[in-house]
Amino acid sequence: MKKALQELKKRDSEIMLLNHAAETLRWDQETYMPPKALPQRADQISLLQGMIHEKVVEKSNAGLFAECGLTATTPNGPAESDDIERAFLRESFKRFSKQTKVPKTLVTELAHTQSIAQANWIEAKKTADYNKFKPYLSKLLGLLQQYAECMGYEDEIYDALLDDYEPYAKTKETEKLFDSLKDSLVPLLAKIVEKRKSGESDIIQRSFPVAKQEEFNNQLLAAMGFDLSRGRMDVSAHPFTTTLGGHDVRLTTRYNEHFFPSSVFGTIHEAGHGLYELGMGEKLSGSLLANGTSLGIHESQSRLWENLVGRSRAFWEGFYPGFKSLFHDALNDVPLDDFYHAVNSVSPSLIRVEADEVTYNLHIILRFNLERKLLSQDLSVDDLPEAWNIMSKELLGIMPANDSEGVLQDVHWSMGALGYFPTYTLGNLYGSQFYDTMKQAHPDIEKQIKNKNLLTVKQWLADNIHVHGSVYPAGELVQRVTGKPLDPQYFTRYITAKYGALYDL
Amino acid sequence: MKKALQELKKRDSEIMLLNHAAETLRWDQETYMPPKALPQRADQISLLQGMIHEKVVEKSNAGLFAECGLTATTPNGPAESDDIERAFLRESFKRFSKQTKVPKTLVTELAHTQSIAQANWIEAKKTADYNKFKPYLSKLLGLLQQYAECMGYEDEIYDALLDDYEPYAKTKETEKLFDSLKDSLVPLLAKIVEKRKSGESDIIQRSFPVAKQEEFNNQLLAAMGFDLSRGRMDVSAHPFTTTLGGHDVRLTTRYNEHFFPSSVFGTIHEAGHGLYELGMGEKLSGSLLANGTSLGIHESQSRLWENLVGRSRAFWEGFYPGFKSLFHDALNDVPLDDFYHAVNSVSPSLIRVEADEVTYNLHIILRFNLERKLLSQDLSVDDLPEAWNIMSKELLGIMPANDSEGVLQDVHWSMGALGYFPTYTLGNLYGSQFYDTMKQAHPDIEKQIKNKNLLTVKQWLADNIHVHGSVYPAGELVQRVTGKPLDPQYFTRYITAKYGALYDL
Repeated sequence: MKKALQELKKRDSEIMLLNHAAETLRWDQETYMPPKALPQRADQISLLQGMIHEKVVEKSNAGLFAECGLTATTPNGPAESDDIERAFLRESFKRFSKQTKVPKTLVTELAHTQSIAQANWIEAKKTADYNKFKPYLSKLLGLLQQYAECMGYEDEIYDALLDDYEPYAKTKETEKLFDSLKDSLVPLLAKIVEKRKSGESDIIQRSFPVAKQEEFNNQLLAAMGFDLSRGRMDVSAHPFTTTLGGHDVRLTTRYNEHFFPSSVFGTIHEAGHGLYELGMGEKLSGSLLANGTSLGIHESQSRLWENLVGRSRAFWEGFYPGFKSLFHDALNDVPLDDFYHAVNSVSPSLIRVEADEVTYNLHIILRFNLERKLLSQDLSVDDLPEAWNIMSKELLGIMPANDSEGVLQDVHWSMGALGYFPTYTLGNLYGSQFYDTMKQAHPDIEKQIKNKNLLTVKQWLADNIHVHGSVYPAGELVQRVTGKPLDPQYFTRYITAKYGALYDL
Repeated sequence: MKKALQELKKRDSEIMLLNHAAETLRWDQETYMPPKALPQRADQISLLQGMIHEKVVEKSNAGLFAECGLTATTPNGPAESDDIERAFLRESFKRFSKQTKVPKTLVTELAHTQSIAQANWIEAKKTADYNKFKPYLSKLLGLLQQYAECMGYEDEIYDALLDDYEPYAKTKETEKLFDSLKDSLVPLLAKIVEKRKSGESDIIQRSFPVAKQEEFNNQLLAAMGFDLSRGRMDVSAHPFTTTLGGHDVRLTTRYNEHFFPSSVFGTIHEAGHGLYELGMGEKLSGSLLANGTSLGIHESQSRLWENLVGRSRAFWEGFYPGFKSLFHDALNDVPLDDFYHAVNSVSPSLIRVEADEVTYNLHIILRFNLERKLLSQDLSVDDLPEAWNIMSKELLGIMPANDSEGVLQDVHWSMGALGYFPTYTLGNLYGSQFYDTMKQAHPDIEKQIKNKNLLTVKQWLADNIHVHGSVYPAGELVQRVTGKPLDPQYFTRYITAKYGALYDL
């Protein structure tokens, strides 16, 4: 087994090197690449992806896995190995098995259909004409159903897609979490809507010069302990974080003079992802375990930093004086309480990406319910827009005026990314449960944050979560770190307390 | 043959895509990569290089080439093909044959020795202690001799190395060109030294704020017609140009407030390379023919732009008023004539990279003579420093005070790059011969340059040189474009006229 394991590790390290090379090309495409380079860049990336795929599904891998005791009926690493070795075998066998299951023709057809669907979605959204998108969504759904059947599932078809983004998660359990969440959020939102005043966040749209936003964001990166000898931050149209190597994590942000939250909270959010990627244990270096264990856990890191830290009163008690002196013209007349309220203003809006902490998860629950029904054929693409509108009314209390701000608002479905949205809300749930445990270990954490000392937060997350990479699946990680399975009450308690205080409920 | 040719083209296009991917990683390494990412980046690049090499030497290529009529004894494309097809077969067969000839063990040993030699060269240069470098140079020479024997050569061993940088060039002919050049330059330099005044270039070292240098360089790129939708310019420690795709050429420059020529002439120089790369014909797109045909021809483009255009009186008659208004504080009291003289000041110095147009080629001739003798074992590494000093006195009239400013000054030998230096001087020769032909086609070219119109220069070079990529070897290209073989008299006439006027000779 030793030899087989060594060979699998060597092959994995080459796959990871090629992955990071491909990520470098993608990063460059979004940041610095001149526009006319696009078609050839797409060819470069697709060639690399093809080579990566070949290495993953390489036939002789099956024998090596078998030598290590892994087969379709015994997909976990041997009990006598240590956690890391067992996880390496489990995760690399899972990657091999999943990619081996999908026929090449289906991969090609999916890629082809996605690119056509996306082009038509752009057109459909522009003209708010769902019918232009419908046939492509329908085709995509058929292919995704085929894909899910290839993958296999025990319980329901949605499980197979969810597993691509939140490995080992189950739809049924996710539904329970989300239902419980909905039951708290919908009445909370109703109370807030009664109390909220128009104009409570107007100051956000004053002029905040971009160069000074940059200066403040660099202060934030330093305070968060984001190591610029192992990463950097650039500008792109859509903010993202990507890993180009164990010591090379790139963040991006974007600037809008009249909407500073986009860059400031965006920077904290992406740096949260970035710290996760930079915090992987040395023993995992260069292997597939040096990766976030699920998108939900990844999102828990970015959202814990963005919301529980970055939108907290303690945070702005510490950072507002410096922020105010940077943007003196805009904030001269604005006391801390008003500022804190403005960056936490709640308002039921139609657009997910502009949603606040209270309504955000309702947007996700809506999508989760609909895409699950689409996949199980309990909802047809014909009836989708109406179902969207009805659920919007039920959850948010408002209805889209047209499909462009309704069913057509997100790009994800046109990319075939069904099963992806739930990870955002799972991230919020994981994040508040982690934060609660951290607070027990460091009862003075808010005092530290008030003193602009964010390094205890960073260190606690690194020691408890980051260092493990993908060694433990999300569910197991939460249990190990917090002593309990994932429980939405941590989030509802947090959100009820924070917004109860903010809106005098 | 059709099928075999198609397959060879497909394989070549994958090699080119991977080359461009590797170049993207290298570009990022020199511009934006965080420092601690270096070791893993080296692993990524070396994995890609290995995959490229495997594709080049792939055994079944031999059969495909044979089907197309190419073998060791018939290495050129079939006469009935058109120029591009014949060139494609000739050049791809040449690449296959050369890389197939070198055993893997030698490649590995060369790479290993180069990296040790370079580290020891750094140390040796720092302490001006040639003995610290000598054993590694000796080892490298042995390996390069083995390499040259693998490659084979008809005339002398240096030919085999020269061919890696200046394909199809011969040492004997290069020697003749260089001897003739030396005979003109040495007496010209002696006359200049008598006339030159100390302090004639002092104004160059005044303060030229970096932001304004950037502004001027952007004006230059625009004037030269460098298309920013197909390329860009960034900052790096050592300026370079690299191609990441047919529509993606990246330049770099560097800034020094007290030495603007570094960025200004550097920008013109690199943009000259960049225009060549962007000017390749559409029919060559994505193939190995979409490359400069030799380093000498590449250097002819950068040096024609930098020196014949960028350091000409006509150029500064056009651009000096704008330049002066940007740098009013530094140049307020400096008339055009003084400025023009300052950026063309001649002075025999010990350091090649700081040399002017007159002395530059003497530095190259020195290196060419010495490395040729080292390789043919007519000079031992023991006697190298003394030989360097004697030749320096003979050519430049001055002697290094120590080996750090003598034999240890350049990094190239420590990288095993023997055969590379001559391409710089060949570039100067090709460039002035091309310029002469261009002037015959456009007698008013200097008037255009004076009017800041540089687009005729760009277009003529594109139509006559760039579009052909590597379809014609350098010697054949010069013959086609100028109607004559390469002749050093174009350069000596140019240099004698220009510096005769500048120094009242």
